[in-house]
Amino acid sequence: MDAPLAKRLAVARGDEPADLVIRGGKVLSVFTREWLEADVAIVDGWIAGLGEYEGRETLDAAGRWVVPGFIDAHMHLESSKLLVDEFARLVLPFGTTAVVADPHEIANVLGTDGVHWLLDATANLPLDVYFMASSCVPASQFESPRRELTPGDLDALLRRRRVIGLAEMMNFPGVINGAPSELAKLALAEHVDGHAPAVLGRSLQAYAAAGIRSDHEAYTPDEGRERLRAGMWLLIREGSAARNLQALLPLLAEYGPGRIAFCTDDREPEHIAADGHINSMVRDAVAYGIPPEAALACATLSPALWHGLAHLGAVAPGYHADLLVLPDLESFVPDVVLKRGSPAAEIPEADVPDWVRHTVRIGAFGPEMFRIPWEGGPARVIGIVPGQIVTDSLVDEPLHRAGEALADPERGLAKIAVVERHLGTGRVGLGFVRGFDLQRGAIASTVAHDAHNVVVVGMNDASMAAAVRRLANRGGGIVVVDGAEVLAELPLPVAGLLSDAPLDEVLTASHAVLAAVRELGCTLDSPFQHLAFLALSVIPSLKLTDHGLVDVDKFELVPLEASS
Amino acid sequence: MDAPLAKRLAVARGDEPADLVIRGGKVLSVFTREWLEADVAIVDGWIAGLGEYEGRETLDAAGRWVVPGFIDAHMHLESSKLLVDEFARLVLPFGTTAVVADPHEIANVLGTDGVHWLLDATANLPLDVYFMASSCVPASQFESPRRELTPGDLDALLRRRRVIGLAEMMNFPGVINGAPSELAKLALAEHVDGHAPAVLGRSLQAYAAAGIRSDHEAYTPDEGRERLRAGMWLLIREGSAARNLQALLPLLAEYGPGRIAFCTDDREPEHIAADGHINSMVRDAVAYGIPPEAALACATLSPALWHGLAHLGAVAPGYHADLLVLPDLESFVPDVVLKRGSPAAEIPEADVPDWVRHTVRIGAFGPEMFRIPWEGGPARVIGIVPGQIVTDSLVDEPLHRAGEALADPERGLAKIAVVERHLGTGRVGLGFVRGFDLQRGAIASTVAHDAHNVVVVGMNDASMAAAVRRLANRGGGIVVVDGAEVLAELPLPVAGLLSDAPLDEVLTASHAVLAAVRELGCTLDSPFQHLAFLALSVIPSLKLTDHGLVDVDKFELVPLEASS
Repeated sequence: MDAPLAKRLAVARGDEPADLVIRGGKVLSVFTREWLEADVAIVDGWIAGLGEYEGRETLDAAGRWVVPGFIDAHMHLESSKLLVDEFARLVLPFGTTAVVADPHEIANVLGTDGVHWLLDATANLPLDVYFMASSCVPASQFESPRRELTPGDLDALLRRRRVIGLAEMMNFPGVINGAPSELAKLALAEHVDGHAPAVLGRSLQAYAAAGIRSDHEAYTPDEGRERLRAGMWLLIREGSAARNLQALLPLLAEYGPGRIAFCTDDREPEHIAADGHINSMVRDAVAYGIPPEAALACATLSPALWHGLAHLGAVAPGYHADLLVLPDLESFVPDVVLKRGSPAAEIPEADVPDWVRHTVRIGAFGPEMFRIPWEGGPARVIGIVPGQIVTDSLVDEPLHRAGEALADPERGLAKIAVVERHLGTGRVGLGFVRGFDLQRGAIASTVAHDAHNVVVVGMNDASMAAAVRRLANRGGGIVVVDGAEVLAELPLPVAGLLSDAPLDEVLTASHAVLAAVRELGCTLDSPFQHLAFLALSVIPSLKLTDHGLVDVDKFELVPLEASS
Repeated sequence: MDAPLAKRLAVARGDEPADLVIRGGKVLSVFTREWLEADVAIVDGWIAGLGEYEGRETLDAAGRWVVPGFIDAHMHLESSKLLVDEFARLVLPFGTTAVVADPHEIANVLGTDGVHWLLDATANLPLDVYFMASSCVPASQFESPRRELTPGDLDALLRRRRVIGLAEMMNFPGVINGAPSELAKLALAEHVDGHAPAVLGRSLQAYAAAGIRSDHEAYTPDEGRERLRAGMWLLIREGSAARNLQALLPLLAEYGPGRIAFCTDDREPEHIAADGHINSMVRDAVAYGIPPEAALACATLSPALWHGLAHLGAVAPGYHADLLVLPDLESFVPDVVLKRGSPAAEIPEADVPDWVRHTVRIGAFGPEMFRIPWEGGPARVIGIVPGQIVTDSLVDEPLHRAGEALADPERGLAKIAVVERHLGTGRVGLGFVRGFDLQRGAIASTVAHDAHNVVVVGMNDASMAAAVRRLANRGGGIVVVDGAEVLAELPLPVAGLLSDAPLDEVLTASHAVLAAVRELGCTLDSPFQHLAFLALSVIPSLKLTDHGLVDVDKFELVPLEASS
């Protein structure tokens, strides 16, 4: 028999005292979008009832607002660069009590094993971490993750308890065109997140007809409206780079929160530390003029409904006691955060086994691997578009000397390389990039979407080799070097993606690498964000992987030599 | 690979023609509650896309409205007294394309076998019939169905494809009080329908805390409001006896259709034939002033969401092409009904095996079994409350002669008996009832909630015996006799609950039995509805089962002799 349920019913009836009663607050009913004057009775981590109740403990919420914990409808834990325990310490005070994560980055680096590790590492947090099985590893045939995730891999992942569906189907052209490989993945799950940037009209109808019922890539109200009409949940995203909230709030005003949920997708640790998490979206929506009850629904009931999280997202009997007490309906920074009825206790450090730490494997190498033989003539050049992850496809003639092409600080031309780092194959893609404006030295990162090989941009081969060597020795991270000297670094030894340090250290190191790269002459706002997306072969126009330059518009590898 | 999906995507892209295009209509988006000007492209029974499309066939919907097929959120097929094929023929023209049925009556008569038969009999209808596993057989320990349904039985039923949850938990006192038997049932399913008449306050909190998230028993706006706030879906019922629509429409006006769905629960065939089915609720809601888009949502998307029917309830890509074309937004009688993209073809007759037909088993009996030895003094008398299924608990002194109590037409006192009819045990409960005002003869029925034993009310033992004998010989039904003569009858040979005749014959026979009972002196509007609920031991105040008189308020068997 279900002893905890029997006890919960006894508390609901008033026959036994609750563990805790929250008294005197205005309690949000997410179902009717009203504020109820009621006590909330909590027992064994569950809400037993709303009404008049007695408990062994009482929390006085008079003059304050009681709402469900916030749920992030779609996010990547890896973007926080924090280990999951530190991520939980960071977001819980902002009221986030559950997230639905796509472990896409760890899956590129460590395959299903990495996802299983992340599942285990998040099992006992005072933060519910649900997962969607990463559907697109590799992102394209031009990228080299450690291994491909097959339909069999996904099928196995989907059997785990907290894996609730198939993560964003980024190969939207494949889905729309009925590629057998993508239809085989779709056949595995009923619940599938979408990812369909700028897809409209018949293509969007096809994407929805495939059974994909959400999207977080809408940038305009028209895009959002078309998704809602096609039966897709609109997940409004406010990431660090892609910020869509303001543009899409008119849809929330027009249609209400019934089919709209909030998500962060990718938020940098600096962003969360400075501005908060899902709560910042509620705050901004209310400031825009959305009724607080509707904005709160987008952060609570809506994500729970979309993902079928039946016991989350409401303050009602039979729901988990994941609750916030808010001092006002403007700041949305909670006074109290209860997870399963209790304030978060000390969170133990996540266990990181050796195989998760030692992921940067590069064969013997030196400056010579970055050498570009060149006899003159025009070359393709990746052009940075400040503030965006798309690039321009440029043509310019590099400096050359002694049969070799060189970087040229005067014209802002740097060398770029992507070094395969999972299997130590020695495969290197080489090219040129304009926009970092380095005067000397090199910057490198093992955070390099989506395969997360090493991406390095530099003004000379010695600096580039030193940067890559440093990352190989430290197990990954972000590094700024000048010649043989390491100017600054943010070590990310966990899969080359995550730090194992506390937030403060990560922020300090992060500021240091930014200062160092400025010292080298770079004036971009977020140089490492740009760097991290230069290897992503599915975002236009010209990108570089370990296989070479990719013309994304034509979706083919192209030579460094430009034809004209 | 999923060949039909590949084809659907090709049609959605416009690369292949649709099977059928519905052109020029205003198409309801249930998600945004707007009317879209769009073609609907249909292929292989699915909606491929909305937009501009070409098809091998075209349906001109200019000037008309295209909406999803209606879904009945909670109903009992047995109340229609029709076999499932005839039920489908009746409701499809009214636009009902899916129902969620609780096979509670057939389960009382034929156990899980009966439910399996009904599942098989509904497998190939052009009407989707989903089932909830009947949770309360028997309704109480005072009733004798053929057999009890154990948690094991329910667990097995829940594994069948179209069994989607646990049916209405009618034993609400058991749930609220944490009875282990009921908690064991609740542990079997995540999806559970409620049944909580007049339950309020802490009791309702306990009922909801048990995980029960719907109720169709609200009679007043206050009851409905409390259910919504407690996180329960409000299923607004408009049955033949219990009509709650008008009373609850203010809640739909106030809160919108987000957590509100329509259902019929129990509708007599006369009612459906004369007034329609779910469409009548939409019509009446719109007449009341509910926007058509909201009323339609309660009949389409809302029931689909509550029951998790992911491909029903919307006109959108990736949904089943269950569509109606409406000539106006007043009558809600469709011009066209498409099921999986086609008008319903001829529906074959359901197969009814012998074991489903021969369910009335009564041992040797005669008039003597209705004899009530009596030496004078007051007796408990069931008092009919016209138009309601509750009864009064009365006391009166019956006529008695030669040591035997008799019916008394002058004082409106009739004899009543409930005869166990599943196992032929010979068990009979005896009593008196006031309110039918029969002057002579007897009426009897094998429709007698919930155990569906034979209930017979008569003015003399010979007529009562003749009525019961007739039902035993015909395999069940409703009969009106006078002495040895059968005045009229509605045969219900299928489990003693359903006719195997066409609707017209059922209506004709139904009118005939009503005329015959009027001839015997009865003036009640719906005498057989009253008769059918006199054996239901969970509705106050005084009821009769084959075990004897039940004081429902005290929930115990009581003797016929009244104490005072």
